[in-house]
Amino acid sequence: MGTIVIDIGNSRQKAAVWEAGELLEFSVSERISLSLLTGWQQKYGVRYLACSSVAQPDSAFLAALASQFEVHFPEQLPVPFEMAYQTPATLGTDRLACMAAAAALYPRRSVLVVQCGSCLTFDLLHENVYRGGSISPGLLMRFKALHAFTARLPQLSPQEDVPLVGDSTSASIQAGVWQGYLAECEGMIEKYCAQYENLIVILTGGDAERLKDKLKKTIFAQPHMVLCGLGFMLDEYIKNQ
Amino acid sequence: MGTIVIDIGNSRQKAAVWEAGELLEFSVSERISLSLLTGWQQKYGVRYLACSSVAQPDSAFLAALASQFEVHFPEQLPVPFEMAYQTPATLGTDRLACMAAAAALYPRRSVLVVQCGSCLTFDLLHENVYRGGSISPGLLMRFKALHAFTARLPQLSPQEDVPLVGDSTSASIQAGVWQGYLAECEGMIEKYCAQYENLIVILTGGDAERLKDKLKKTIFAQPHMVLCGLGFMLDEYIKNQ
Repeated sequence: MGTIVIDIGNSRQKAAVWEAGELLEFSVSERISLSLLTGWQQKYGVRYLACSSVAQPDSAFLAALASQFEVHFPEQLPVPFEMAYQTPATLGTDRLACMAAAAALYPRRSVLVVQCGSCLTFDLLHENVYRGGSISPGLLMRFKALHAFTARLPQLSPQEDVPLVGDSTSASIQAGVWQGYLAECEGMIEKYCAQYENLIVILTGGDAERLKDKLKKTIFAQPHMVLCGLGFMLDEYIKNQ
Repeated sequence: MGTIVIDIGNSRQKAAVWEAGELLEFSVSERISLSLLTGWQQKYGVRYLACSSVAQPDSAFLAALASQFEVHFPEQLPVPFEMAYQTPATLGTDRLACMAAAAALYPRRSVLVVQCGSCLTFDLLHENVYRGGSISPGLLMRFKALHAFTARLPQLSPQEDVPLVGDSTSASIQAGVWQGYLAECEGMIEKYCAQYENLIVILTGGDAERLKDKLKKTIFAQPHMVLCGLGFMLDEYIKNQ
């Protein structure tokens, strides 16, 4: 019996069917369509749904979900690790779900999950305890901020293979945002690896693929850690019913 | 005879009296007061003024300046280096002035100027040619972006001595922004040093002092590179009259 898992971010929404540890169907869009979920429900006989959201709650959408599914939110589901986080009420449920996936996929290992999404987040599971991590602006957010918070810089989109030294204003922004983001990711991963031995590093989120081959250290890209985490958490909940 | 130099940034405005290669008087505020400049004019017999601005032009303020001083803008002043920058019309005059200061203070050397202000900029003078550089969000802009462009993250101000792993949402933002910014600066400086031998690295701007002692590499902090650059450029102009 499949379940449905939903990951609502600040810029994109993802939905998938989760069954036996795998994502069978997958959709990413600006806005999840209810008819898509209804179709999946009929095809896979879905009863349970888990939804993570870091955006403003959309009560109409949540009400529609609740009329069709047994809906669960990550903060109410059991997690397979201890929490050292001091403010669980404000912990992004995407970060929580990533840690659940890390614990399920790499039991008894130290795992750093790097989410390259709207925000760049680092989260550490060490000795089966979630220790916390960090949050900084994601790649697109940096372009957006340069335009929004200065008088004269244009709004740009990311380009590939940007040189270090930009010889125009556009090339300078491309160099600063991309090379800076890369340097930040690289440096942060190095700091974590210096503090925690034999660390497994997982990249996830929209910009993970773009980043993966540029980093010196061997890392794994798992594009859907949040969805997988939600699936594992829901499985555990259902098993205990 | 002293001159007055003015540096209008996206968040702060600086003014100073420049004479014989030194800043004799200095003021930083949200908005420069004209009466302060008038006082300096009387005290030092100032005729010439150079003004760099990366903010929206304030025509009333510029008109008031022009009624009292012979006002010059960096883009119209001679620079003591060649330009390889492809879009000089959109080059921030703060970056131009930093390069003029670098050329005057370190003749015949390769110099990287890192401005830690509203934006984080890198600018390279190599073989007496301005090669360009990069622009990414500054420290405060990163805090601002996290709040403005997400649904649930609070607006925070920088703290000192932030641990790598934040165990609350506030601590995670502090860790991400500060440790990430530090990693970005460190990594970018390393990339430049790998490409350009015997590079002199100068930190300037509001967050330079905070950053200086945290970097592994030996660097110099010169808090007022823009003002000094304007002073040198104006001196050169006056000399050629």
